[in-house]
Order: sequence, then C-alpha cells, then structure tokens
Amino acid sequence: MNDDLMIFSGTASTDLTRSICEYLEVPVRKSICRTFSDGNTFVQVGENVRGRNVFIVQSTIHPTNDKFMELLFWIDAFKRASAASVTAVIPYFSYGKGDKKDEPRVSIRARVCADALESVGCDRVVTMDLHSPQIQGFFHIPVDNLFGLKTLGAQIIGDGVKNLVVVAADTGFAEEARQFAHYLNVSVAISVKKRERHDEKAEITDIIGDVKGKTAIVVDDFVISGSTLIENAHSLREKGASRVMAAITHGVFAHGTMAKIEASALDTLYVTDSVENRPEAVTDRVKVVSVASCFGEAIQRISRLESVSDMFLK
Amino acid sequence: MNDDLMIFSGTASTDLTRSICEYLEVPVRKSICRTFSDGNTFVQVGENVRGRNVFIVQSTIHPTNDKFMELLFWIDAFKRASAASVTAVIPYFSYGKGDKKDEPRVSIRARVCADALESVGCDRVVTMDLHSPQIQGFFHIPVDNLFGLKTLGAQIIGDGVKNLVVVAADTGFAEEARQFAHYLNVSVAISVKKRERHDEKAEITDIIGDVKGKTAIVVDDFVISGSTLIENAHSLREKGASRVMAAITHGVFAHGTMAKIEASALDTLYVTDSVENRPEAVTDRVKVVSVASCFGEAIQRISRLESVSDMFLK
Amino acid sequence: MNDDLMIFSGTASTDLTRSICEYLEVPVRKSICRTFSDGNTFVQVGENVRGRNVFIVQSTIHPTNDKFMELLFWIDAFKRASAASVTAVIPYFSYGKGDKKDEPRVSIRARVCADALESVGCDRVVTMDLHSPQIQGFFHIPVDNLFGLKTLGAQIIGDGVKNLVVVAADTGFAEEARQFAHYLNVSVAISVKKRERHDEKAEITDIIGDVKGKTAIVVDDFVISGSTLIENAHSLREKGASRVMAAITHGVFAHGTMAKIEASALDTLYVTDSVENRPEAVTDRVKVVSVASCFGEAIQRISRLESVSDMFLK
Amino acid sequence: MNDDLMIFSGTASTDLTRSICEYLEVPVRKSICRTFSDGNTFVQVGENVRGRNVFIVQSTIHPTNDKFMELLFWIDAFKRASAASVTAVIPYFSYGKGDKKDEPRVSIRARVCADALESVGCDRVVTMDLHSPQIQGFFHIPVDNLFGLKTLGAQIIGDGVKNLVVVAADTGFAEEARQFAHYLNVSVAISVKKRERHDEKAEITDIIGDVKGKTAIVVDDFVISGSTLIENAHSLREKGASRVMAAITHGVFAHGTMAKIEASALDTLYVTDSVENRPEAVTDRVKVVSVASCFGEAIQRISRLESVSDMFLK
Amino acid sequence: MNDDLMIFSGTASTDLTRSICEYLEVPVRKSICRTFSDGNTFVQVGENVRGRNVFIVQSTIHPTNDKFMELLFWIDAFKRASAASVTAVIPYFSYGKGDKKDEPRVSIRARVCADALESVGCDRVVTMDLHSPQIQGFFHIPVDNLFGLKTLGAQIIGDGVKNLVVVAADTGFAEEARQFAHYLNVSVAISVKKRERHDEKAEITDIIGDVKGKTAIVVDDFVISGSTLIENAHSLREKGASRVMAAITHGVFAHGTMAKIEASALDTLYVTDSVENRPEAVTDRVKVVSVASCFGEAIQRISRLESVSDMFLK
Amino acid sequence: MNDDLMIFSGTASTDLTRSICEYLEVPVRKSICRTFSDGNTFVQVGENVRGRNVFIVQSTIHPTNDKFMELLFWIDAFKRASAASVTAVIPYFSYGKGDKKDEPRVSIRARVCADALESVGCDRVVTMDLHSPQIQGFFHIPVDNLFGLKTLGAQIIGDGVKNLVVVAADTGFAEEARQFAHYLNVSVAISVKKRERHDEKAEITDIIGDVKGKTAIVVDDFVISGSTLIENAHSLREKGASRVMAAITHGVFAHGTMAKIEASALDTLYVTDSVENRPEAVTDRVKVVSVASCFGEAIQRISRLESVSDMFLK
Repeated sequence: MNDDLMIFSGTASTDLTRSICEYLEVPVRKSICRTFSDGNTFVQVGENVRGRNVFIVQSTIHPTNDKFMELLFWIDAFKRASAASVTAVIPYFSYGKGDKKDEPRVSIRARVCADALESVGCDRVVTMDLHSPQIQGFFHIPVDNLFGLKTLGAQIIGDGVKNLVVVAADTGFAEEARQFAHYLNVSVAISVKKRERHDEKAEITDIIGDVKGKTAIVVDDFVISGSTLIENAHSLREKGASRVMAAITHGVFAHGTMAKIEASALDTLYVTDSVENRPEAVTDRVKVVSVASCFGEAIQRISRLESVSDMFLK
Repeated sequence: MNDDLMIFSGTASTDLTRSICEYLEVPVRKSICRTFSDGNTFVQVGENVRGRNVFIVQSTIHPTNDKFMELLFWIDAFKRASAASVTAVIPYFSYGKGDKKDEPRVSIRARVCADALESVGCDRVVTMDLHSPQIQGFFHIPVDNLFGLKTLGAQIIGDGVKNLVVVAADTGFAEEARQFAHYLNVSVAISVKKRERHDEKAEITDIIGDVKGKTAIVVDDFVISGSTLIENAHSLREKGASRVMAAITHGVFAHGTMAKIEASALDTLYVTDSVENRPEAVTDRVKVVSVASCFGEAIQRISRLESVSDMFLK
Repeated sequence: MNDDLMIFSGTASTDLTRSICEYLEVPVRKSICRTFSDGNTFVQVGENVRGRNVFIVQSTIHPTNDKFMELLFWIDAFKRASAASVTAVIPYFSYGKGDKKDEPRVSIRARVCADALESVGCDRVVTMDLHSPQIQGFFHIPVDNLFGLKTLGAQIIGDGVKNLVVVAADTGFAEEARQFAHYLNVSVAISVKKRERHDEKAEITDIIGDVKGKTAIVVDDFVISGSTLIENAHSLREKGASRVMAAITHGVFAHGTMAKIEASALDTLYVTDSVENRPEAVTDRVKVVSVASCFGEAIQRISRLESVSDMFLK
Repeated sequence: MNDDLMIFSGTASTDLTRSICEYLEVPVRKSICRTFSDGNTFVQVGENVRGRNVFIVQSTIHPTNDKFMELLFWIDAFKRASAASVTAVIPYFSYGKGDKKDEPRVSIRARVCADALESVGCDRVVTMDLHSPQIQGFFHIPVDNLFGLKTLGAQIIGDGVKNLVVVAADTGFAEEARQFAHYLNVSVAISVKKRERHDEKAEITDIIGDVKGKTAIVVDDFVISGSTLIENAHSLREKGASRVMAAITHGVFAHGTMAKIEASALDTLYVTDSVENRPEAVTDRVKVVSVASCFGEAIQRISRLESVSDMFLK
Repeated sequence: MNDDLMIFSGTASTDLTRSICEYLEVPVRKSICRTFSDGNTFVQVGENVRGRNVFIVQSTIHPTNDKFMELLFWIDAFKRASAASVTAVIPYFSYGKGDKKDEPRVSIRARVCADALESVGCDRVVTMDLHSPQIQGFFHIPVDNLFGLKTLGAQIIGDGVKNLVVVAADTGFAEEARQFAHYLNVSVAISVKKRERHDEKAEITDIIGDVKGKTAIVVDDFVISGSTLIENAHSLREKGASRVMAAITHGVFAHGTMAKIEASALDTLYVTDSVENRPEAVTDRVKVVSVASCFGEAIQRISRLESVSDMFLK
Repeated sequence: MNDDLMIFSGTASTDLTRSICEYLEVPVRKSICRTFSDGNTFVQVGENVRGRNVFIVQSTIHPTNDKFMELLFWIDAFKRASAASVTAVIPYFSYGKGDKKDEPRVSIRARVCADALESVGCDRVVTMDLHSPQIQGFFHIPVDNLFGLKTLGAQIIGDGVKNLVVVAADTGFAEEARQFAHYLNVSVAISVKKRERHDEKAEITDIIGDVKGKTAIVVDDFVISGSTLIENAHSLREKGASRVMAAITHGVFAHGTMAKIEASALDTLYVTDSVENRPEAVTDRVKVVSVASCFGEAIQRISRLESVSDMFLK
C-alpha cells in the first residue's frame, strides 16, 4: 500500500524510525553506518534510490556532532546516488539553541548547520518544536516544524490532569507558553530567571502570574541537566502550586539528571521520544509519549502532496 | 580628520545621516535618487568610490518597499562602481516582523530581504533592535545589532523618572523586557494579550507581575497604530500603575496614531529617530531621542577596526 | 479539463489574470494580499500547493516597488509551501529599462530584480516585449519573452488600416521596428532623437526614411508620459504622414498623459492590457487589445510541455 | 615607478600587452602557456602573486574557444596562487554576439562565458565596445566597457577627413551610431538590411537618411567576413556618397576578407589592435589604431583607485 | 519502445552516439552545430525538449577546447529550452589530467571544467575511466564513472590471450592496475618511470614485479603520443616478457603516433571507441572495442531509474 | 616583531599551536571552547579580530566529528566578528580518506567537509600530506598542502639511517612513494595488498621490487590500527629486508595500536606531531618529529605575501 515510501534510519533514531514505519506499515530501508577506529563515520545506502523521494530520520544528539556529520553524509550519499529528493526528518535539532549572537564573537551555530545541510543538497526538513520559530528562516528549503507540545498536551488531558496553569520555564519561552495555554484554554504564568553565562545553573528570581492551588505545568522545548526545571518546581511549590508537572518536547537528559529529578519537587515530566540513545534510563517520574504517529502522518502527507499545516487545524 | 569615511544617505534617512555626519565631522557624500513618473526608482552615486569602504544609511520605511528597493539599487551601484565594501546602515529594518511562518503558506519576508541584500553584494549590516535577534542568522554577512533601548533607558533615567517597573508589551517581548529591566535594575511585568490575526487590534487579557503604585514603562521594538500600546496603558492604570510611560525603539506611526496617543492613558512615549518621513508630526507626549551618536560611534569603530561589542560593556 | 492548472493573481494583474483563466476555463486560485498601515506587504497562499506547478501573474507596476516586492513574497511563500515549481508571469517587467550602465555609477536594476527573483527560487519567467532581448540573459532560469507587438499588429490589420510605414520611436528601437515592419511586410523609418538625461523630455531632431502620404505607425515598448510619442506624431505630420498611429505594448500612462494625447497629433494608440491599476482612465484615442489569450496559450503550452516558440511560427 | 602593477599576457594578446606595458613603463610578467599534443591547454604563472592585484590581458579570439579556456585557467591559477584580485582585460570578447535568444532553443553564449569567468573567481572585467551594453549586466562583478570607437573617431578627425555622415551598419547598431555621430557632431544614416540566418550573407535593402555627396563612415563593433561592410559600401556609393570609410572596433578578419576589401568600394577601414593572431596580414586599406594607451590608462586608474568613467568626460 | 529516450549528439561523438542509439533502438535527436568563420561555436536544439530528460553525448577532445565549449552551450540551450534534466555523457573527459596542483601556480583544470558544467545547469554526468576517481568529488551532481577497462579485459579474454601479467604504465596507475589484475585474476607488475616536466617524454627507470615469459598487458587510462607505452613495451621485452599488449581506455592519438606504434615492440593495443575525430587512421596493431552497449545500458538504467552500479556486479 | 600575526588554537591542536607560536615568537590568541552536557560545542573568540587576517589551527581528529564541527564554528565566529580573512590550518584532515565513490551509494565525505568549510566562509586552507593531491580540487579556495614526509625524511637521514629502500604501503601510495624515493635518491618497492572492505584488516599478497639486505622504509600518509604497517613489516622481513622502519605523516593511533607495534617486526616508526590528543602514549619505537617550524614558516610566508611553494625548492 505504501510501497513507494522510502524511509531510512540514522543511528540516532532507530527506535523512532521503527515506530514511524510501523505506523505507516512500510519497512525501514537498508543502510549501513560504521564508525572506524579513528572515529571517522562511514555510511552506505543499501538500496537503489535513483529517482526516489527519500526520507532519512536522524536526531542530531547523543552525541551531537557525530550524528550531525552522519546526517550530512547520508544526504550526500543519497544525492550522489541520484535520489530525486531527500527529506531530513530531524526530530530534535540540537544546535537550534545556537540561534543568535547573544555574546560577542560567537558563532550562530544553527545557521552553520542549516547551510551545511543545504550545501549537501537537502531538499526539505521536517522537525519538531524548534528552539525558536525563526530557525525556519535559516533555511531556504521548506521546513515543516511539527507541534510536539500539542501531543504532550493531549496526553496530559487524557491522563485526567485538571485545574491547570501553564508556566513558561523562562521569559524566552513566554510566547510559546501563552500559545500552549491558549490551546489548553487555561491561564499562563512566567518564570523570570537570571541565567549565569554558560554554567548551566539558573537562579530563579520570580514567578509572575497566579499559580496558587493549581497544578502547574512547566513548559519548555528541551531538558538537559534539569536544573532550571527543578528550581522552577521548587519555586512553584513555594508560591503555592498544589502539584508541579512539566511538558517538555525534547528529553535530552545528561548523566545524573534522573537522580536529580527523583529528588525534586517535580511530580511528573512528560517528554516525547524525539531523543533516544540517552546516557541513562528514565525514572518513573518521566513519561515518554511517542510522536511516531505525528511524524508518520507528516511523512505520509508530504508523500501524498497533502497539506501538513492541516494537521494542526482543529 | 575623518576624511576617509564615506557616508551616503538614502532618501529615508536624510536627517539621521546628517546628524551622524555632524557627530563624525564628515560631509554627507553626493548622490542622486529620482522617482520617475512610472514609479521606478533611479539612483546614481555622485563620487568616485573605487576601492573605498562605503556606508549607506537607509531605514526601509515610509514607504517600505520603495525604500528597500532603493537600498538594493544603491548597493548594486556601489559594487559595480568598484567599492571595496558596502555597509548598509539600516536603522529600522521594517520587514524584521516577517521572521517566521506563524501561519500556513506565508513568506518569511525578512529572509527574502536578507537574501536580496546579499545577492547585490552587501558586505555588512548595521541595524538596531531587530524584531528578533535570530534575524542576524538570516544573513551570512556580519550584522551589528545596536541596542537602541539602552539609549532610551539612559534618557528616562536622565529625565529623573523613578520607581519604575518594566512591562513587556506582549509575551513575545518578555525576554527583551527582562534584559532591559536588568539593565535598569528594576523588576519586570508582562502583558499577556491575544492578538487577532492581521487586524492589528489587540485584546489585552492580563498583566502579570506587580505594577501597583509604580511608573510602568511599556517596552517594545516598534509602534505603528499604537493600539497595543494604548490598551496596555489602559490596563496598567486599571492595575494601579501610578503613571504609564513607554520606551519603544522604532516610532513608525501610521496616520491617526498621534491623535489616539493624545487621547490615551499614556503619559510619555520615548522613541528614537530611527524612522523619519512620518505621515504626521509627533505630539508633545512623544519624545524623540537621537541615536545618531550611537550609529556614528559604531561606524567609526567599524572604520577603525575597533570592537563594536565594546560599546555595550560598562 | 484543465484542473491541474494552478494560476494565482498578484494585485497588479487581477483583471488580466481573470481573463487568462476565462480563456483557459480554470478558476483563479485563492490567495490573500494585505498592506499593513506601515506599508509592509503581506501575502498568504490560500490553497495547498505541495508538489504543484504554480503560475503567479503580476506586472511590476502601479506602483513598481510594491508590486515587485509582493511578487518576491509570493514566490517565497509558494516555495516554502513546497510547490514543485513557480512560474512568474510578468506581463510588464518595469525595471527592464534599467538594463545597462549608460551613466557612471548607476545600478543595473533589471539584473538586481532578476537576481532577487532567482534568489527566492523562481523557476521560470514568462513575460512580453522586454525592453531589450538581452534581459533574458540576466536570468539563469528559462524566460519566455512573448511577442506582444504581434498581437497589436494583427489588430491594426484587422481594423483595416492600410498604406503603412512603421516608425521606430528612437534609434534604440530600430531593430525591433525593422522586425515588426518585416512581419507586416511594410517599410520602416526611424526617429532620431536626442534625449536629455532623466528629465523625460525628448527633443526630436529628425525622422529618417520616407513617410510622406503614409499612415505612420510609431512603435515602442512602453509609453509613460507620452512626450516622445507626441513629439514623434508632430514631426511625422510635418514630414507629410497622412495619419499617425502608434502600437506600443505596455501602456503605463502617468497622471496627465491622457489629456496630452487628446491634444496631440496622434490619431490612435494601440496598447495591450499588460498594465492595469492605471492612475486615470484611457481616452477614446487609446485602444486596449487583450493579450490574455497569448499568455493563456503560453501557460497551457508550458503546462502541457509543448513548445512555446511554435506560437510564433506562421 | 609602477612597480606594483602586475600585468600578465595571454597568448591571444601578446602584442597589445607589450604595448600596454610600454605605455605604463612596467614589465610583462612571466608566465608559461603550452598546448599539448592532444590539444589540452596548460598554463603556469611564473611569479609569486600572493596578495597581489593581477591583470591578465586576453582577447578571446583566434581561436575563440582555446583562448577563452586559457583565460579561465589563468584566472583559476592566479586565484589558487592567492592573488588578492584578478582583473580580466578582454579587449575583444568574441562571444558577446551570443547575447540573446533570437531563435528557438539556442544558448545565450555570452552569459555562459560570464558565468564561467565568475565561477573561477574573476574579480573585474575591462573590455571594449561590447556587442551590446546589456552584457555588463550578465556579470555581477564590475565591468569597465571602454569606448573604442572614440579612439577611431579621434584618428579619423586627426587624419583630416571632412564632410562626414555616420552610417549604422544595421538597425541593431543604430543607437551606437547615433551616439558616435553625436560625439563627432555630424548626422546619422542607417542601413536597413535583412540578414539570412547564419549564412553570414546580408542582403542590403535600404539606406535611410541622407548620404549624398558626403564621406560616409560605416560604424560597427566587429568585422569578420566583411560581407555586410562591403555591401554597405556598395549601396552607399549608389546612394551618392562621395567616399566610403568605416570605423569598426574589432578587426577579426576571416580568411579571404582582405582580398574582398581590396576589391570593394570601401576606401579605408579603421580598426583597433584589440584583435591579433589574425589569419592574414592587413591590406593598405585597413588602418590599425592602437588602443594600448586607452587600456593602459584604465589599468592605471583601476590600480590607483581613480575613476575610469572620467576618461570619457570631455 | 524507448520513445521517451532523448539522446543528442555533440560533434565529437557522432559515431558513438549513433551506435548507442542503435543499441537502444532510438533515433539520434535533431540538432545543429555550426562553427562561424571567426571560430565561434553556435548550437541549436532541433526538437522540443520542454520537461524532458535529455542526454547529450560529447567527448571533450579533437579539439579539446572547442568540444568542451560546445558542450557548455548545448547544456545551456537545453536548460533555457526548459528541459527537465540534462545528462552530459562524456566518454572521454580530457581535462581529467589536470586534477591537481603538482607544480606551483597552476590551475586545477578538471575542477574549472566541473564548475563550468555545473554553472550552466548540468544535472548529471556519465563518463568512463576518469583519470582519477577523485574527480567525481569535483562535482556536486551525480557522476557515473563507467569501468571501460572491464570491456577491454573481456575482449582480451575473448580473444584467447593467456598467461597474463598486468603492468601499470606508471606508479600513478598502480592501484587501478591492481584492481584490473584482480578482475582478471592475474598478478601485477609496475613500471616506475621518471617523467620530465611537460615534454611528454618519459624515461623508464624500472619494471618491478615478475613478467618473465608472460604476456604483459600494459594498462593506462589514455594514450596520446605513445612514448610511455612504447618505452614500457621495450623495457618489458628486455625483462623477458614473451609478448607485450596494452589495454588503454581512451585512444586519443596525436599525429605520428600510429607510425611509432608500428615501429615498436608492442604487439597489440586495445582501446575503446570513446574518442573519435582522430587525426589519423588506426593501424592494424590497434584494436578498437566499442563501449556503445556499456553507455547504452547505463543510459537505459538511468532512464528507468535502475541501479547503474549493478552493471559492475558479477 | 610579528605583532600582526593572529593565531588561534582549536582544542585538537593546542600543543602544535603553542610550538608554532613559539617558533614565530607570537602569543597564542585568546579563545574559549566549551562542550555542554548535551555534547553541543560552543566557541567564543576572545579578542577583537575586525579587519584582521586570522589563523586557526585545528586537526580534525580525536574525536573527528567534534573537532570538525568546532572548526566550522570557529570560522563562522571569526567571519561574523568581521575578520578580514580566516585561514584554517588543518595539520591532519581526517576525512581526506573519503575522497571517492569506491563503493556504490557512499558519500564523498572529503567534499562534504570542503563544502562546509567554504560555506562558513573559510578563505584559505593550509594542510599537510592530504590523502590524495586531488583533494585540493575539492576546494575553490587556495589550499597549501605542505610536504610532511620531507620533514620525516630529513630526520631519518639526520639519524644516520643508510642503505635505504622506500616501500609504498599499498599500490594507492605508489606514486607518493616514488616521489619520496626520488627525494631521498633511493629505489622504490611496492606492497601489493588486497584489503577486505571496511574491516580494516589487510591481507598482504606481495612485495614487488627488491628489498633484500636493505633498510626498508615503509611510507604512508596515516597509521591508525597499524595492521597494514605491521603486516608489511612482517612481509619485508620475510623478503630479506635487514631492517624495517616506517615514515608516516599522521600518527592517528587507535587504542591498542602501541602494543601491536611493540610486538611487531617494525624497528622504528617516524610520525609528525600533526595529531595529538591520542588515546594512549607513544612507545619508544615511535619517534615524533615536529612540523611546527614547517607550519610556522608557511604561516609567516602567507602573512608576508611570500611564496609558499618556494619552501619546497632545494
């Protein structure tokens, strides 16, 4: 039925690719990726792709640079093998964080990555909850930015969580939090923090907006060390929140984060399966919700030339 | 003294260019711009620029498209006349607002403009308070994004305004407001509005954060019709603010805006002179603070190969 | 029957687009274009175009820069919405006049526009009677340059006009006039004028070639103020032409031109409907001949992968 | 004195380069060009050019394709050897004739050449009397198009030729002829011919404008077989011209052309030394005027960052 | 049966194109190529190619530069005529030899050619036995590098030649010789020569590896003057080879080469028909083996979206 | 004295950069590189580089992908900080091995890396003993490929090693070995191996050329696992070599390689210090020869606009 769909898996997203392919009832296509003893990455496409529209699924994480370079090599291999088009499905685009010059003489790393992807001939990107929506503009090629928080929101509602207030993890996420609160039809509060440069520790200065007696849902696009999240949970409890949960699209999780979550005021953390190959297993407090059907649906629509934006209507 | 500086003025920024040149004690260089009776724009550089580093000052506003196209033609004329480099000084980059695909099947107009500027050979951009800092990443060439709100903040403090709270005009400006509050060493509040699509009317839903008895300074990057600003002023008064002022970098002002401001709860609006050729004169409630020295200083530093980021230290 | 043809209209060419679509028996596709109160242009494609071959019809005139920028945004919107290809149908390409450096340190504006169109990803251009045929070479993409004067010539013959001589409006149009005379199988004369720089007033110095007792048909690619045309008509009468008519593809017409034509020695002016949104209504002396079927035929041939050059064979 | 000028010679322009260097009192720089027995061209720069502004002089003729490819290899060699900039001085740009699609499915060869020059990294072009001024727009890089006919005009006046009328060799050269007549302050006539496709024979149909009793100066940009020129001379005599001369910038001359000129009604043909390596020696009727000082002056001005357009002011 | 295949012939490969088309049972498509008397090349595509996948067959040899420029013009003409894709089939890519900077300040001519091909819009290259496999990396577009030596090897085996040793013509071809020997399942020897710069004479210093009593098959990618080959043949005889043959893909052959081969120790030279238009007829010692079926098969596979690499399995 | 030289160190080459700077008597410039807990790389230039010519030294190894991405970010940071030019000094370019499509549907990884470097705006590359000289052609920008084996050869001679034969580690290195033997004025032998795909184990099939009673110097461009080298040493001993040494430019060394070398027939291995951060310390059998002066000299010549190729003249 879906014989024409050619979906390949990068080594960062083998589980998600399998789930997407199961959803679409198509096989994961054959390919080989090896790491040589000098650390060089080698890829080889295992099937004829001449004139075909190819999808390659690869989050650029765990580890970041290896998986990003691997993705470049995949696309180059497909294009030199005469694929008609290559769509990079990047569930988590880790260098999205490097989207501006917020300090003197730094790189805009997300643009570097966008240019590298275009220079190997990538024809389209499908991704989810980019760190900022402007990153679409770093690309010339079409970028479909799926709405992952929506999937988490549906799960939270499905789990019967009530009396909610959405809390932006910081002022930089205030607009996204407002939109998410609007989607859930609840009110919004905002955590105003002062982050020290690059040491990844955040000092919470204030929660503005009313959270008393409510179930606070902290929202953000990614969680790594968990520091911001845990301090937010602590502050929210102090401000009278009855319960603290979080909905964060990309569960990156560094070493030690799970233990910190276990010891924190956070009741439940919802993340998607956009990230895998994590350094440690998730605790019971973390619920992983799959976005395989979301990506599968997008791939199918792209393949059938149907609108992807329609996925987000009603 | 500064004989080597070659600064040209586009027709959108003749006053500001004159002020910049006075600050730098250099002449505005000769050039001709004509609009033919069919509406076509024609430009001609009036001096030999072979091998020179040229600056052209042009806000892309009043009217937007004419001034943007004029800028493209200036740059092309300089490059074909063998200028060594062309720096576009764009005090107000009006299409910055079009920095993302927030609706299906729209253009990312800021990227279109960035590409057009690069395709004519622009070597560098100097601008101020871009709608989002990510827009720097729409360019390959270096972009110096000057901090205009800082100039307004210095003026407000110089005017003796006290007991301040900074209020973000909407959630999308929360992070910039937080940074500005940090610069002024005061607290921050945030207006959470729900904007209807494209009709430029905003419905204020809430002010979160404490403003009671304080002088609220609404901050934003531009003001056009003034609707958002005026509704914010109204809401802030209702929430108990003792006085409402605003600091907004780019005073675009459409027809009728001045009268609306006169009739509003807003006491004083500080804007810079990044925009001129306005459709009507400013009222007494609007204070225009010049950023000529700010741009002049940046141009001088670029010309002397000194750091521009150092301007913002201390 | 022609379900597959997707033709969109820019705001400069709504009438012509409607006529083209009527000729082809297809609907004009849905789209929205708004001008905000700051003069910014906003466009939104109203239908799914994923994988489709899209045509957008837009003359870049009235006003020039707004309509050109709008066209860039349309193309960017189509490409980011994953259209397979975008053909810009530009009945009148107004910056064609800026096709060379005829004075020191000017821009070659037609090339600036060509580059901007290619940088947003335009795949093909269909236009008519470019100011010079070399402009095709400003583009990398295929440009079909339809022969609009042919349509006017057919109308003139159909109107029973006899005893003709074709008169080039100036030496720069001599070759095109010779080709048109060859098409009509009549002789050619040439007006040798000396144009003062940029003041749009022309001083006729001579008509060379024989026009005595004939119906002179002045030919040119566009008419704006009408000065050149009217002085030519006067000179031709003085040289003994029995009647003076004109065939000019693009009737741009500035304010006041119609009155000047009414008061002139010109009997009839044939123009096409490549330009609309004119500042004033045409007088009885101006006959507008539609090129809708010409563009419709070209679009159909492109869509069916048939030769467009065959349209011009006998 | 001019130690800094680095001028290299391609194999098509060794004489002209030597003359230019004599005018500038600098040596021709060392380089090697070999043709292998398979016809492959090999070039090697003989001096260190790191960080230097290099000029390479090469007409692309005799034979066309060899000399053009050689030029590409020179530029690539200079750029890979880290020259700061490379200026291609192309006295005769032979593929200028291919500047439009005047027949179905042909190449715009001048644009192909322009793109190839830019793709190897050429920084600037200096050339003379391009087949059409629009060709400047085929390039992004600055193109200085020197006015060679002016040099010929000065020589004609210096030779005491009087009672002149300038005659455009065909309608496509009418505008250039009008400008040249304006420069000489004489009147203009135009030869209206009908050229058969590609057989290089022209049938003269008419001379329009008054030539009786005058010395007619036929002007054109190049002469190859001489057919057009000779038929023009014949027609001009028939129309009563007392004497027929010609001023043609680029004397290409194919085999047999000299004999045809000897047998013709043409008294004298003025050409420049833009072309060398001709297949046969010029006859006495052909006067070769050097443009070495013209190119030398342009190179010096470019090198000293002075205006080149000033060369053409009275 | 193969109606859809559109194969055009450049003037360097008319015989091979005819053979390929016979193999595929399709006609050679109509086209015109003329050389004007000034040496300029002109091409015109004779059939409508709008939306078609076009193949143009052209070795870039005899003479090199003319045929390469012709190829660029073909591709430009196809693209401007709206071909969907253009595949350049280049049986012999003569500038492959210029693939590195082995001396100071030379051009990498193969990269110059690759860039020129890409700049006119070439979509794919099919070629054979490139001078080095790295040349594929000079292109962004897919390059299918067919294995011509394999065809010669099959012929040699078919001709019953036995007791073989493969001899690399020089150390630069050692790896290719090893692969060829592996394909034939025989051992390998290597000629170690010292080539003087650019005079095309080689001094053989040694044959390493055992050739005594064997039929030595010298392998190389091209033969021009034959000097290397003939000296190798001589040395191999001296080392005791019972018979000396050669398998060389591209038989370029300069003037005089045939006589040198006749007078040499070389018994038989196998070459393919990748090169034609040779300056003199081949002698009996040279056997020309056709690769028409090899190219035909590749074209068919490309056209049917089948794997080309599968051609080389088993 | 060398105040103008701005040399920065990437994290893969801190030792070599320090040595280069000591040689040049300049400081290593300030910069910061951090790896976040999610594995993302962050770089920040610590000094004003506006208008400066910057050098960044970074081998792309240990680990490959991290160091390559870091290099891209450095260059982007320098360019956005308005450096006049950025020279990437890449002592070991690890993806040079991926320079061809030697299997179906693989990537040409060296070209991917070259394109990425050019897309961030790299102006020049200085490297050493590239895997193949053709890789220079993967770049448009100038690439200086220093001759590292020469430094090792000088050391070997300085160490008094006599009675040498140079042995190519495989047929792919035969030409480089021949050149090295020519430089040392000794004879050459070649190891003909058959490498199994990607398992990094090599099966030696033969040594061709005479090695009996000689000190064999195996030459290659890199050593990782050491398998090839060790098997070569074994075979050479069997063939009667009196002693086996090796000269290999890039000592990459995987885990376990040192122990294998200790247990092998190899007496001494000479490598340069192009690679650092190795996974284990070198054994006594490995002699590391510094190329700091070689890189220092090249940087100085580039900076003073002197010839780099002159470094390699006798």
